[in-house]
Amino acid sequence: MAQLYDRVALIGLGLIAGSLFHAMKRAGLAGEVVGYARSAQTRDVAREIGLCDRVVDSVAEAVDGADLVILCVPVGAMGAVAAEIAPHLKQGALVSDVGSTKGAVIEAVAPHLPDGVHFIPAHPLAGTEQSGPRSGFAELFDNRWCLLTPLDGTDPEVLERYKELWRQMGSNVDEMDAPHHDLVLAVTSHTPHLIAYTMVGVADDLGRVTDSEVVQYSAAGFRDFTRIAASDPTMWRDVFLANKDATLEILGRFTEELFALQRAIRTGDGEHLHDYFTRTRAIRRGIIEAGQDTDVPNFGRNAK
Amino acid sequence: MAQLYDRVALIGLGLIAGSLFHAMKRAGLAGEVVGYARSAQTRDVAREIGLCDRVVDSVAEAVDGADLVILCVPVGAMGAVAAEIAPHLKQGALVSDVGSTKGAVIEAVAPHLPDGVHFIPAHPLAGTEQSGPRSGFAELFDNRWCLLTPLDGTDPEVLERYKELWRQMGSNVDEMDAPHHDLVLAVTSHTPHLIAYTMVGVADDLGRVTDSEVVQYSAAGFRDFTRIAASDPTMWRDVFLANKDATLEILGRFTEELFALQRAIRTGDGEHLHDYFTRTRAIRRGIIEAGQDTDVPNFGRNAK
Repeated sequence: MAQLYDRVALIGLGLIAGSLFHAMKRAGLAGEVVGYARSAQTRDVAREIGLCDRVVDSVAEAVDGADLVILCVPVGAMGAVAAEIAPHLKQGALVSDVGSTKGAVIEAVAPHLPDGVHFIPAHPLAGTEQSGPRSGFAELFDNRWCLLTPLDGTDPEVLERYKELWRQMGSNVDEMDAPHHDLVLAVTSHTPHLIAYTMVGVADDLGRVTDSEVVQYSAAGFRDFTRIAASDPTMWRDVFLANKDATLEILGRFTEELFALQRAIRTGDGEHLHDYFTRTRAIRRGIIEAGQDTDVPNFGRNAK
Repeated sequence: MAQLYDRVALIGLGLIAGSLFHAMKRAGLAGEVVGYARSAQTRDVAREIGLCDRVVDSVAEAVDGADLVILCVPVGAMGAVAAEIAPHLKQGALVSDVGSTKGAVIEAVAPHLPDGVHFIPAHPLAGTEQSGPRSGFAELFDNRWCLLTPLDGTDPEVLERYKELWRQMGSNVDEMDAPHHDLVLAVTSHTPHLIAYTMVGVADDLGRVTDSEVVQYSAAGFRDFTRIAASDPTMWRDVFLANKDATLEILGRFTEELFALQRAIRTGDGEHLHDYFTRTRAIRRGIIEAGQDTDVPNFGRNAK
């Protein structure tokens, strides 16, 4: 496949950056990939495992001469990083990010970028519960969506080339505006994560059910919640603070529905419960038909 | 391996009964396994796929001469089935069940059973989101827990033989009293399921985020919730009605914690969020160390 960028800089070397590096290399999309992480320890690990063609010790050096700079840091750190790289960006370079919220990232990053530098926010809907420089892999984006939220006046050629990068890394690509993105993600990702964290916290608090029992008998349900609730704490703190309004709105809807089901349990209204559970079942079928999850029972935990 | 029961009757032919049949056959634990389901269609499917050595058309015929009768019907149907089989049970037979709640099942079943018939309630912590006669498989119980909640005065030999059956089907076996079982399961399974159902219902209701977007962009989080919320609606309706008190208690704790996190988001208290998310992460490690889930990232959805 054709090389799309001569030099790519990855700022932050966690799960997503690691996967970007491997996915770009798999398809020969970048000439040189330069990496930088704030933590010296992370940089050492990256060098040790060959993550990036070159790992450098300053963010200025990382973006120097780069055609594409992708910010792969927690959402709350985007603004500071943008301010730091701004003076060192090459004219005509494209800056992007992989943050899980887009409104707050645009607000934090765009004001720092000089004229003549392009900015296209991106969010690959891909990840695992693992984090750090060792956790990335080339297949992470395969058949997953990458949502771009380009600003008004974005250069169409720059946009098309960047879309092509994601497609060549295995992604499906779509565009939407940032507020809509943030609402959709509040439903499909942010609120579910908060709920999973909460449920795991409740179990942890419960003095009468000892930790070992909760762990030992973590039947389907709780076990799946613990996986979700094992995701990176800094990343998720920043997501909730950055997507406050949409998350609070969906949480309000959630508690309203939860209270209705709670009342049905209290009053013994089996019909309400059965109707509700039948309706939600249909959504699962839609997700499998859309190719966004496997229909292997129990995620293939049981070899059949 | 040694045969433990000459004749076993399975009442209800869904995921668990199907898996029981295959697991017993795998290890040669039962002479003949007779099956019955209320639905003629289910019985036809069972005959077609060879589920059970013999499928019969009445519950009386199914339990006739059986040494072990396992009730594999939704929790809310246990009492009626117990009343129906009672006159046909062989003296010395063992009746058990696989219901997800134990207090309500004991209350519904025990009064119907005649003297000279043993009763040991059981709950295998195993399942998938699939249901029906075609969904069972021999490996479902491997390395999963089966919790027994024997009543006072249970015959130790009868109990030991039944435990051996579960062990030979691949399970780990533990005993606890029914109220404690119901509280533990409210934490590890029942409340997580209710929450998952609720979140999926919220997404379904949300007019501004179309169904197709929620389905298409079902990033990790929501996608996992839909799997949980795809479980059998009748089974789960019965679980919540049968384990009302413990579920409502845990739900109360859950909403209390959720409101605290919601307030932290609203007030921008990142430290509270980060501390909470760090604590919950540790529980996941415990579950993997206990062998109750894989540590393959993202359930192995991404081949690494």
